[in-house]
Amino acid sequence: MKLASLKHGRDGRLVVVSDDLVWCAAPPPAWQTLQAALDDWHHAEPILRGVAESLAHDAVPHSRFHERAAASPLPRAFQWADGSAYVNHVELVRKARGVEMPPSFWEDPLIYQGGSDGFLGPRDAIPLADTSWGCDFEAEVVVVTGDVPLGADYATAAASIRLVGLCNDVTLRNLIPAELAKGFGFFHGKPATAFSPVFVTPDALGAAWRDNKLHGQLKVDFNDAPYGRADAGEDMTFDFARLIQHAAKTRALGAGTIIGSGTVSNRDSDGGPGRPVAEGGRGYSCIAEQRMVETIASGAPKSAFMTHGDRVRIWFDDAGGHPLFGTIEQVVA
Amino acid sequence: MKLASLKHGRDGRLVVVSDDLVWCAAPPPAWQTLQAALDDWHHAEPILRGVAESLAHDAVPHSRFHERAAASPLPRAFQWADGSAYVNHVELVRKARGVEMPPSFWEDPLIYQGGSDGFLGPRDAIPLADTSWGCDFEAEVVVVTGDVPLGADYATAAASIRLVGLCNDVTLRNLIPAELAKGFGFFHGKPATAFSPVFVTPDALGAAWRDNKLHGQLKVDFNDAPYGRADAGEDMTFDFARLIQHAAKTRALGAGTIIGSGTVSNRDSDGGPGRPVAEGGRGYSCIAEQRMVETIASGAPKSAFMTHGDRVRIWFDDAGGHPLFGTIEQVVA
Repeated sequence: MKLASLKHGRDGRLVVVSDDLVWCAAPPPAWQTLQAALDDWHHAEPILRGVAESLAHDAVPHSRFHERAAASPLPRAFQWADGSAYVNHVELVRKARGVEMPPSFWEDPLIYQGGSDGFLGPRDAIPLADTSWGCDFEAEVVVVTGDVPLGADYATAAASIRLVGLCNDVTLRNLIPAELAKGFGFFHGKPATAFSPVFVTPDALGAAWRDNKLHGQLKVDFNDAPYGRADAGEDMTFDFARLIQHAAKTRALGAGTIIGSGTVSNRDSDGGPGRPVAEGGRGYSCIAEQRMVETIASGAPKSAFMTHGDRVRIWFDDAGGHPLFGTIEQVVA
Repeated sequence: MKLASLKHGRDGRLVVVSDDLVWCAAPPPAWQTLQAALDDWHHAEPILRGVAESLAHDAVPHSRFHERAAASPLPRAFQWADGSAYVNHVELVRKARGVEMPPSFWEDPLIYQGGSDGFLGPRDAIPLADTSWGCDFEAEVVVVTGDVPLGADYATAAASIRLVGLCNDVTLRNLIPAELAKGFGFFHGKPATAFSPVFVTPDALGAAWRDNKLHGQLKVDFNDAPYGRADAGEDMTFDFARLIQHAAKTRALGAGTIIGSGTVSNRDSDGGPGRPVAEGGRGYSCIAEQRMVETIASGAPKSAFMTHGDRVRIWFDDAGGHPLFGTIEQVVA
């Protein structure tokens, strides 16, 4: 089942979307928003699945689904907590700074509390007041949870996964060093995030979803050229159940919590840092990673961060070559 | 005007509360939750003020207001961002650790992104799975904002303040050093926060609200003995408008954003670190600060963090000696 929120007010209007993303149908009035459905999933899920089945059989009123009319599936959320599960990425960050990564990073997940009061739609421009802030994209996989009790075990965490999607975790790189030096984590460095046009239930992902990971290429094009082709299922040190379990260590997580994977990142086939797609590598899911590889290779970064007019596309193809979650496509404005 | 949310479902049921906190009345159905009112404040505010006036004149159906029946005014929120505006507190933390505080901390506010997916009610127990985590209270002042545009100036930030309240920002002290060393800010160290039974519009605070600060004693009792009597209006380096402006530097803030002051903390009258209330001082708004003062004085902390059965009360008296925001009263369970 695929769900989206059409742009409408602060929380959008929930629609069930056909598997091919061509049509959509409205659920009953009790679940006008995705948050309302997640709050009452036990009742909502069978109803929404019924709508999806009727839509597949052309048996309900429906209209064309346009990705450009979609908000993020949760246009705002009560929690957005982003992990850093591809430890390769973290190790590269440290290596470029010339510092060792603590070995505990392979055992103990990193996660930060993100701002969730307003997300960008999948086709919304990225507002950037100052290009010197170093605006970067980060292509990630996300899951949305139901209620997760405090101290949940791995199986409970896994069973809490309701939906899977993609995001562009926009990051202002040049604001981060000073911010992290203050010791309180990210704030200015993480402006509004954008999510894929649809979120999908794990059962509808087929072979692409196993071991609580999404398997397959997370595709990123930057200014219409291939930039990232990393496999989201490889090198993910902590799967989503593990990230959720970690997040719930000292507190319960409310229904509708979004948990992110962090920037998807693969080691190169020879074990070294990745190469650009144009050089036969898998490329990068953010500009910072390319800059880190450049720094490791030549002492300084060469690639510039995004500036006004730059365009990033993020998507994930199904077995038939169609974007499973729709496409995030954003221009810096 | 005073607003509260009676415990009901995930978002509570909004009520207008009489100034003496004895009676409450329901608003019209369009604004059944405080978030709904904040989302539509331009329309909701005059209606809610009408209910408050009718309630004051005994001219609407009303019932007894019981603080124990109240959830946090926003039982969950789309954003909870907590500052650290009492730089005295930050300086003591550093001094106890034997490190200098960067002078920039007097100019550049600290703020962290808190978890907002579920808050504790003002009389809810504090769930603590492991006493070795070092459970502490933090008595703070908070404001709730309307929509704040990206890059808002000081006057716009000040005008966005809708409501004022108190909170107990529960903190797990012993988890924080390792967490901050990882560089991603607080997560495990900040479990669910509790807020005061009512939030109050600034105009109803009279002389206690000026210069975008709350003025007067924030009272804290720990296990029924006076613990903190700091004045929230003194030593607040960054007022709430400044904190909001800082938070909105790189992104807009959605209506219903809660901004916290950080632990209220005063210098002692002789300029030194504070003394306990029992020794004629203003005491402390968290146990950690007492421990820091003990460490500075004698090389090691003496006071223990909270354990099961410990009780904390946080309130702020009006000119007549009645708790203006009601009372937060929590036991560790």
